[in-house]
Amino acid sequence: VAVVVRASAGQINPSIRKSEEKVADIIKVANVPKPKAVFCRCWRADASKFPYCDGSHVKHNKETGDNVGPLVIDSTP
Amino acid sequence: VAVVVRASAGQINPSIRKSEEKVADIIKVANVPKPKAVFCRCWRADASKFPYCDGSHVKHNKETGDNVGPLVIDSTP
Ligand code: FES
Ligand code: FES
Repeated sequence: VAVVVRASAGQINPSIRKSEEKVADIIKVANVPKPKAVFCRCWRADASKFPYCDGSHVKHNKETGDNVGPLVIDSTP
Repeated sequence: VAVVVRASAGQINPSIRKSEEKVADIIKVANVPKPKAVFCRCWRADASKFPYCDGSHVKHNKETGDNVGPLVIDSTP
C-alpha cells in the first residue's frame, strides 16, 4: 500500500488543455492519418502531439505498473 | 492537499483488461461505427463497452475535478 500526497487526487489528465471544461476531440474520418493513426489514451503525450500518441504511455506504465495503451485506427485494406 | 491511500498509485486504468501487458485497440477504419464513433479515454467505461465511451467520464470529472473526454471519429460528410 502506497501513501500518495497530491493536490489533484485521482485525476487522469495532469496537464493537457486544463482550461477546457472537457477535452473532447472530434476528427473527421477523412482527416484521420493514414495508414495508421495512433491516438493517445494516457494523457501524457506531449501537448504538441495530443490527441496523437507519442509513446509516453511506455514511461507511465513502467513507473506505475499500469497497462494503458493507444487506440489505433487502421486504414490499410 | 489530499492524502490518498491506494495500492495502484498513479495508475490511470483501474480495471480494464488488467491481465494484458498493454491495452492497445486496433480498429479497421471500415469497422468504425457510423455516423460518429465515440472512443473512451478515461478508462472508466464499462468493460462491456470499452474501447467505446459510455459517458462514465462525466462521473470521474465530477468526482475529481478532472477534464477528460472522448475521441470522436466523425464519418459524416
Ligand atoms: S502517449 Fe498516450 S497512449 Fe501513447
Ligand atoms: S466513458 Fe471514458 S471517455 Fe467517456
